[in-house]
Amino acid sequence: MQIVEPLQVAIDELSKLPSIGRKTAQRLALHILKSDEEVVESLVKVLHELKSKIRICSVCYNYSIDDNCDICNNQKRDRSFICVVEEASDIISIERTNEYQGLYHVLGGVLSPLSGKGTESLKIKELIQRLESDEIKEVLLAINPDTEGEATSLYLAKLIKPLGVKVSRIARGLPIGGDLEFADDATIGRAVIGRSYL
Amino acid sequence: MQIVEPLQVAIDELSKLPSIGRKTAQRLALHILKSDEEVVESLVKVLHELKSKIRICSVCYNYSIDDNCDICNNQKRDRSFICVVEEASDIISIERTNEYQGLYHVLGGVLSPLSGKGTESLKIKELIQRLESDEIKEVLLAINPDTEGEATSLYLAKLIKPLGVKVSRIARGLPIGGDLEFADDATIGRAVIGRSYL
Repeated sequence: MQIVEPLQVAIDELSKLPSIGRKTAQRLALHILKSDEEVVESLVKVLHELKSKIRICSVCYNYSIDDNCDICNNQKRDRSFICVVEEASDIISIERTNEYQGLYHVLGGVLSPLSGKGTESLKIKELIQRLESDEIKEVLLAINPDTEGEATSLYLAKLIKPLGVKVSRIARGLPIGGDLEFADDATIGRAVIGRSYL
Repeated sequence: MQIVEPLQVAIDELSKLPSIGRKTAQRLALHILKSDEEVVESLVKVLHELKSKIRICSVCYNYSIDDNCDICNNQKRDRSFICVVEEASDIISIERTNEYQGLYHVLGGVLSPLSGKGTESLKIKELIQRLESDEIKEVLLAINPDTEGEATSLYLAKLIKPLGVKVSRIARGLPIGGDLEFADDATIGRAVIGRSYL
């Protein structure tokens, strides 16, 4: 098998990226090889700026260009409401729904004793400080509903409730467009427990 | 919806790549954002070298680092046998099967009157020159078995046969309308072995 070396190197490098398999990596490398110089330059520029221009918001740890992110700076948002998420990328998912108008707080992960991730490695202290100093009425925990996420949610609820702040978490149930036949038992169980009355 | 601008720009740019949808583009951009500086630098370096280091072989038009590609330079290959392919990337697919030991010739496409691709835009003249000057005994046409590919194969066969060179084409074990790039190795290998003479 004879693939010219810089092409093979590029395929290997691209296959390391998430959700890029060997065939996709080869197609990408060949596409770039056939593209004009400008296409590559614009891609390279964008990757560089991604690393150099984006900082972390000093309040909520969202991605930001300035010291504070657009959401923290937006005076139209409900400043009494904080949604806690694991990663800054989760904010993008929630913002896309247009259902939430409050502020955010990025934890930076979940409690995971097995992988050595304790309370100190998450932005929990910083969350409590925000709750103590600002006029926060409700905290919505939008943490992934897996075992570690559930444990983290319960841990945070226990910390936050004594401060007199309402704590909620996102509903767990069947996804919209989902099918009872294909849902797992735990999800159906949750959907039954969390039923809403019409 | 509030995605910080350099991230949005990166997602837009990455979505332009083949087989990268919006969700994959977002995952890639976020992955790069979270990665170390070195990861990005190594990716950027690889993309640059892909463009700067790779040339086209002056004999067969395969990708190459030097003036002649590794396959043309390899004295162990059967120099009486030329396999004609549409694109240099098809060589990678055929080489992977280990069923072919001859040389190659990249046409640069197929005859396509509708998109204005005539005989002049393909490396047909160059192929004929090779057949006239070298000791070529057989030409294997490994052109995609779709309508335009078939027409190109028949056209080439008509040109080549008068030169006293045997002409074959890969067996149409490949699904009609298919593409070498997406076929599995065993199928491509079978197609080389089962070539039919014209």
